[in-house]
Amino acid sequence: MLKPVRIGIAGLGTVGIGVINIIRKNLRLIEARTNSSVEIVAISAKSKSKSRGISLEKYQWESDPTNLAKRDDIDIFVELIGGENGPARQSVEAAILSGKHVVTANKALLAIHGEHLAKLSEKNNVSLKFEAAVAGGIPIVKVLNESLAGNKINKVTGVINGSCNYILTRMEQSDSSYGAIFAEATELGYLEADPKLDVGGIDSAHKLAILSSLAFGTVVNYPGVSIKGIENITLSDIKYTADMGFKIKLLGVSEMTPNGLRQTVSPCLVSTSSPLAKLEGGTNMVVLNTSEAGNIILQGLGAGREPTASSVISDIIDIIRVSKVETFGKPHQFLEEAKLSNLPNDAPYYMRLMLDDKPGALARVTKTLGDNGISINRMRQYDHNYSRAPVSMITHTTSIWALEKAIGELPKTGVISLEPVILRVEDTE
Amino acid sequence: MLKPVRIGIAGLGTVGIGVINIIRKNLRLIEARTNSSVEIVAISAKSKSKSRGISLEKYQWESDPTNLAKRDDIDIFVELIGGENGPARQSVEAAILSGKHVVTANKALLAIHGEHLAKLSEKNNVSLKFEAAVAGGIPIVKVLNESLAGNKINKVTGVINGSCNYILTRMEQSDSSYGAIFAEATELGYLEADPKLDVGGIDSAHKLAILSSLAFGTVVNYPGVSIKGIENITLSDIKYTADMGFKIKLLGVSEMTPNGLRQTVSPCLVSTSSPLAKLEGGTNMVVLNTSEAGNIILQGLGAGREPTASSVISDIIDIIRVSKVETFGKPHQFLEEAKLSNLPNDAPYYMRLMLDDKPGALARVTKTLGDNGISINRMRQYDHNYSRAPVSMITHTTSIWALEKAIGELPKTGVISLEPVILRVEDTE
Repeated sequence: MLKPVRIGIAGLGTVGIGVINIIRKNLRLIEARTNSSVEIVAISAKSKSKSRGISLEKYQWESDPTNLAKRDDIDIFVELIGGENGPARQSVEAAILSGKHVVTANKALLAIHGEHLAKLSEKNNVSLKFEAAVAGGIPIVKVLNESLAGNKINKVTGVINGSCNYILTRMEQSDSSYGAIFAEATELGYLEADPKLDVGGIDSAHKLAILSSLAFGTVVNYPGVSIKGIENITLSDIKYTADMGFKIKLLGVSEMTPNGLRQTVSPCLVSTSSPLAKLEGGTNMVVLNTSEAGNIILQGLGAGREPTASSVISDIIDIIRVSKVETFGKPHQFLEEAKLSNLPNDAPYYMRLMLDDKPGALARVTKTLGDNGISINRMRQYDHNYSRAPVSMITHTTSIWALEKAIGELPKTGVISLEPVILRVEDTE
Repeated sequence: MLKPVRIGIAGLGTVGIGVINIIRKNLRLIEARTNSSVEIVAISAKSKSKSRGISLEKYQWESDPTNLAKRDDIDIFVELIGGENGPARQSVEAAILSGKHVVTANKALLAIHGEHLAKLSEKNNVSLKFEAAVAGGIPIVKVLNESLAGNKINKVTGVINGSCNYILTRMEQSDSSYGAIFAEATELGYLEADPKLDVGGIDSAHKLAILSSLAFGTVVNYPGVSIKGIENITLSDIKYTADMGFKIKLLGVSEMTPNGLRQTVSPCLVSTSSPLAKLEGGTNMVVLNTSEAGNIILQGLGAGREPTASSVISDIIDIIRVSKVETFGKPHQFLEEAKLSNLPNDAPYYMRLMLDDKPGALARVTKTLGDNGISINRMRQYDHNYSRAPVSMITHTTSIWALEKAIGELPKTGVISLEPVILRVEDTE
């Protein structure tokens, strides 16, 4: 006689339907792996009548997800509504307070209310699990929380938004502008309803804040993430950097520096030979630099119905197996409030400048850089465009201070036509 | 007051000392993550007097690991002795029978006695964990057993012996013969005392048998692995295949085919653009093709003191956290005896032939191939060497039957000087 486990699912969008599909399709497998009988008891979504391509009649319907969360006949509440507040937060809190385990794919909820919810679930002795919230089908939460639990993590570097990686790789491959590929991605449905969540780096920042907490045992701190999106990356940037041996990727970087925790989402240059540089299309990759296990790299689909649902299912299975791991890998009282520092370590930087086509213009720029201790590793001057000349360069390793001071002095040269574009060269190996 | 957890460690070689080092170094971290106080109580090894570079005086000494395994004052027995029988097996069995949880890095033990030990540990209600037995620091056991537990696994493809990957990549990079790099690897201490375990594919086969069981829920079946090593790979093979867009890797492949479970360790060609092709040096990579999550790729250090010890520690932490996952991811009674089939799917094949330099020699060979339905995709004829001409080719997709029949008929052409070298082109994406 198998132990019965009863599930309630709130939110019947892409991932919710994916979860139901997988439970139906792989039920025997899941039951063998858990030694339990698994049953979806009740579901909830905004619209009951909407067609979702599968029959849902055998599940009881709750129009209010909070009522679903409180039902006596469910053991595990699966929240797939989304959004950091509103019904998602209310129903998750209600589930925890009524002693239900919770599985969610909601990165905004965890990034913003993670500490509160971790505390609440510990107090109520239930599990709160969220493998699907970060990097879709890639098991990064479990790997950090469990597989690398004996390691100090030095640095987490990831491409954790597939849409941005799609845009950047498509721009290069099809020789197209940011605007053209942004339009294409919109048409293909690759972008969130508010695309700024993707291209503005916010989605990546939510995920990075969660990864930081898992990696460094610190209280999740989303407001402490420095965020820059890909909106200002031009095809020229991609070509110029490729010429010099780099690819541009929107990286999430979380690193414990001597000055504190640095959490940054920004377009960076990575060496063409690095694993991150080779990542194409909508795939995600996370590189974990660890104290004992060296670099561990995980790659997989960062979004999509089945990959995300696969992670939800693995959390459900963990709960059934009574895998008791605290929400962020440690009892809540041991999570530390991180001292934040968004001062990056010294690094090389890419600069794209548009110079007026005057004699000695480049000399004036290099003198200003040199006066600030910044020397140039590689430089390319490209075709003149009317009276202006684009120049791209990679500096030798420099401090951000020196760089910012030099950039502040550049207008005084009288030869700079446009705001310079500055991208960090991130060491990812 | 933290719950005390007491550990006994048998085997004080590279990994054993690594485990002690990490527990000392990261003790506070491990205790925070487990909410327990962790203590090494007793140790055992062949020689007590041997210098191991660290002080071991505060641990109690047992000269017999089986006595260590039975001690009343330990909760977890860590077996790092190695070998499929002898003291390793005896002490693991004794530990299980006396109700201790077991953590081991012993791939041979699991590959050969896995079923018996899984059964024994279930019966005695203890955990038997072995993350360190496969691919060192890469958390492949946990990812298969837990993260992908809701997926059917279609195929596992891995470079799971770093020494072989080192040899193959060094041959290419330094333009050296197999013999020269084998000697170099021996000198550097990269090979097992019996190097056939590495270059003969046996170590990979042990690991592959374990991965198959985890992936397919089948009883571990090491004798069912078809094994071919890298001893006959020449620098010419590496150059010829590179010319045609491939790299040679020693792959472990486990796949559930319509005919049954195929488990193969052999040197194969992989497309230069695939992630496996880009893997250099002693690093390992495993590609998991899954029903729901698509391809999940894990990369990391497959051997070495700290990476392997890191995996041992993660198993210890899992046990302390009361993560109850059955040895091979399912209760033993649900593990199925796999029908075996080492008939590979149809695929392209690489052939290196040495032809006598006679008029029409190549025509005779291609006719024999063509008569057996085998057509050629790419071919290169290289510099003549005295009276013989090396020819390398990649066939179109063909069955292994047709290929073997054709090869059997090749001697009849009267133009073949040496046994042909045949390598499969494995689709790894």
